[in-house]
Amino acid sequence: MSKLRVQCFAISLDGYGAGTDQDLQNPLGVRGPELMEWFFATNLWKQMHKLGEGERGIDNRMAERGFENLGAWILGRNMFGPIRGDWPDDAWKGWWGDVPPYHVPVFVLTHHARAPLEMKGGTTFHFVTDGIESALAQAKAAAGERDVRLGGGVATIREYLKVRLVDEMHLAVRPVLLGEGESLLGGLDLRALGYAVDESIAGERATHMIIRKHA
Amino acid sequence: MSKLRVQCFAISLDGYGAGTDQDLQNPLGVRGPELMEWFFATNLWKQMHKLGEGERGIDNRMAERGFENLGAWILGRNMFGPIRGDWPDDAWKGWWGDVPPYHVPVFVLTHHARAPLEMKGGTTFHFVTDGIESALAQAKAAAGERDVRLGGGVATIREYLKVRLVDEMHLAVRPVLLGEGESLLGGLDLRALGYAVDESIAGERATHMIIRKHA
Repeated sequence: MSKLRVQCFAISLDGYGAGTDQDLQNPLGVRGPELMEWFFATNLWKQMHKLGEGERGIDNRMAERGFENLGAWILGRNMFGPIRGDWPDDAWKGWWGDVPPYHVPVFVLTHHARAPLEMKGGTTFHFVTDGIESALAQAKAAAGERDVRLGGGVATIREYLKVRLVDEMHLAVRPVLLGEGESLLGGLDLRALGYAVDESIAGERATHMIIRKHA
Repeated sequence: MSKLRVQCFAISLDGYGAGTDQDLQNPLGVRGPELMEWFFATNLWKQMHKLGEGERGIDNRMAERGFENLGAWILGRNMFGPIRGDWPDDAWKGWWGDVPPYHVPVFVLTHHARAPLEMKGGTTFHFVTDGIESALAQAKAAAGERDVRLGGGVATIREYLKVRLVDEMHLAVRPVLLGEGESLLGGLDLRALGYAVDESIAGERATHMIIRKHA
């Protein structure tokens, strides 16, 4: 059955899933890139960005897993761009240029309606204004037998976790201290929500934890 | 120079350093033992408790490191026992029986004065009522050239971190979700306090992170 999966989502040792002050210059927030350094070294990332060969170890394998069997994505609005409030125009088309790395329908959660945006390479951004459950229903309809990947950010993942809609979550725990930022799990009783850690896999630059919904 | 070290301190993936509702039946709090399962399997633990041979892998090596070059310990009162408020009498002598596993002076932080308690095997418990800096000064005087280990619990470690008195902290990140408990790092900006993660070491049942004070 089609699952909702969080993949390759990095958190710091102190539990932050994003840095502070996200803007055009800091799409991952200030110090956010430290969270993703494990990913930037992988062959998958290097190939995606035409940067030559990358490492083909455990981190790379975990990165690859994150893209397997995906039929749709869901993104919080801040993952799509730095604009808040109404869309001033249709100029902003995401962080990724003309050919975004999704290649499937992507459902962007927002309070502000906007026409679908068809990009090159198979990605179409759909803007969903009627909530997370609607976005999931639309994404599952688009994905068919395949899974839906929940890209983030922190606030969006927390919303889906609170109502037990996430089936599987792969966190990459990084040996860094951010000190401040958005806490992914703070105040969220995942255990009471029926989640458990099923696997812990030591990678080159992160410890990969696989959490699944059980109860 | 003599250092103040936190060692072998386990936290869950969701950041808790202890379970809830510590009492006589649950010295580590409810579900607290899940944090320490990495330690219970080690040869060090098994030998300490005369339980035969244990594992001699990375977790064991990290456990052994925790006991090297120690001249004194500091414990928060809850690490010493479940009694709160005034000491009713001198009957409570710690969780550990007649021969506690310290074998050096141990300084217990409390608001309630009590005479020193000399145990077998070299451990003497001293009860310190004038604060964490006094406890550290007394422990360092007792330890001489050797280091002082800060045993916990969570609240005590946080107090020492806030005033930058911890020199080194070894955390064992466990692949478990406690859901609730005492957060070790929540709301504490270790980075601003000058701390950084220097090492990440994959053990059998925990990922060991070594944090040191730099700035």
